[in-house]
Amino acid sequence: MAQFRAATPEQEQALDELAEVGLLIPTGAPGVYGRSGAFEDVRLRFEALVRRIGEADGAERVAFPPLLPRRHLEDIGYLKSFPHLLGTIFAFDGDEAQAAEQEERATRHEDWSEFQEMTDLVLLPAACYPIYPAIAARGRLPEGGVMIDGGGTYVFRREPSGDPARLQIFHQREMVRIGEPEVVQEWRDLWRDRAVDLLRGLGLAAEADVASDPFFGRSGRMLAANQREQELKFEVQVQIAGPEPTAVASFNYHQDHFALVFGLETAAGEVAHSACLGFGEERITLALFRTHGVEVDAWPADVCAQLWGSEP
Amino acid sequence: MAQFRAATPEQEQALDELAEVGLLIPTGAPGVYGRSGAFEDVRLRFEALVRRIGEADGAERVAFPPLLPRRHLEDIGYLKSFPHLLGTIFAFDGDEAQAAEQEERATRHEDWSEFQEMTDLVLLPAACYPIYPAIAARGRLPEGGVMIDGGGTYVFRREPSGDPARLQIFHQREMVRIGEPEVVQEWRDLWRDRAVDLLRGLGLAAEADVASDPFFGRSGRMLAANQREQELKFEVQVQIAGPEPTAVASFNYHQDHFALVFGLETAAGEVAHSACLGFGEERITLALFRTHGVEVDAWPADVCAQLWGSEP
Repeated sequence: MAQFRAATPEQEQALDELAEVGLLIPTGAPGVYGRSGAFEDVRLRFEALVRRIGEADGAERVAFPPLLPRRHLEDIGYLKSFPHLLGTIFAFDGDEAQAAEQEERATRHEDWSEFQEMTDLVLLPAACYPIYPAIAARGRLPEGGVMIDGGGTYVFRREPSGDPARLQIFHQREMVRIGEPEVVQEWRDLWRDRAVDLLRGLGLAAEADVASDPFFGRSGRMLAANQREQELKFEVQVQIAGPEPTAVASFNYHQDHFALVFGLETAAGEVAHSACLGFGEERITLALFRTHGVEVDAWPADVCAQLWGSEP
Repeated sequence: MAQFRAATPEQEQALDELAEVGLLIPTGAPGVYGRSGAFEDVRLRFEALVRRIGEADGAERVAFPPLLPRRHLEDIGYLKSFPHLLGTIFAFDGDEAQAAEQEERATRHEDWSEFQEMTDLVLLPAACYPIYPAIAARGRLPEGGVMIDGGGTYVFRREPSGDPARLQIFHQREMVRIGEPEVVQEWRDLWRDRAVDLLRGLGLAAEADVASDPFFGRSGRMLAANQREQELKFEVQVQIAGPEPTAVASFNYHQDHFALVFGLETAAGEVAHSACLGFGEERITLALFRTHGVEVDAWPADVCAQLWGSEP
């Protein structure tokens, strides 16, 4: 199966320390961790901080579960770009004899995959995907398009790793803009700059840069080069568990990709454009604990003030 | 695949109404819905209300993602009781030619399951499962055991249905107690009674009763009868989308089942017992909207006071 990426010595030490103080709770699977109440509190405070900024812009709040109809995934071409990152849902539909055989093998930790069949669902790989068909179902966009706050949404990436900052399942703090091309591009650039300010304001040494997605295979290298050349993707990076920077937010301009798939039209009846942004909530929370220490009570007052508002 | 349970006329009408006012957002898959900001706000306020009660008891807060190592599932015997409800995670590990063939079939909406292999992960079927090994890893329990607040955790049940109250993916508001048998039983009964009071206080006509799990197959009928006879499971029910009551919370006494699997010992070195409770957050939120109306501003003041505290 997917290659396990071993941790660097720094990453291994960071994971040990996070588990030792209880901020992360190992489950036995790499990149699948429980979190302590202190971790959750910081993560949710960051989520709310972004929500308040979106509210001030007039963003509409929605929330989607971590599953997507398989057909949507097939329609948007995810399997061309990222077949290696996807998780699909299988389930049992056999009779009692097959259930007994399946259970017997499972108890012995032997292979019981033959009893599982593909369902109509996959794990959600990006928090923005369910939003496009939901907006398209409303008909033509209003003048100026729409701004959607998708909240903190669990997404899955099949990237087992020993790096505590590389999770297989994590929360993307998602915002989406759909509308006229210039409106969408401006919004994407506005949020990229806002994000740098926001994260620096929380004491993180954040830097924005042009980036590309981890496209699959040889043809993926061309896709990545094209994406960089057109500046379709920016990332904001900080240091988390080692000297090399880790992306904690991304800002993506899709041009007409999703609009063509789902039939999204501007008020004028043109093909709409879309952009999305996602903050990696667990990565940002880890960066905050690594930067300010494991005891939240000892964090700088201005950082606390932003996260907890007027509360101590 | 799993048999689709058609909605009753009342359930169908309820789903249409919920979609019309935007509280639920259809995705194309039954039992997989997006939710509006108003829905999320109520759901999260209920989640926080339960957290405050747990805090007063001294419960320790943790949070786990909606995936479980497959090996844990194999160890606890889930496939004996509920093989029909489980979702397993498959993924791609092929080369570029296989990726191209997979993508081509997917684009044509043909079968591409042969390119997917079983991973070491399954969808979490019950919010309490990751908690037992996490507590066991700490060693022997303290005197009086532990009380864990698992928060609102996404769980998966392969039950596609047209009933808006029967979701395939939903939040269980989870609490777990592990300790001496009498401590655990008392806690389970205390919370069962508390839950009835809590839900009645929110204006829901809640009733508690002995219940059983939907065990699979012929032998499952015996397991269910035994569970009822020993009063191992209680449910609290309310009406949601039709006259028949729906379970919105369950209270489960596992005796030594999980303790034996994961090696949980009391302070005295005896095999521990465990119990858990789960509120169905989406069901309770739906019940509140069905009972008090779709406009939260018009809800009874005492219901608002409990959910929003001193805020309007």
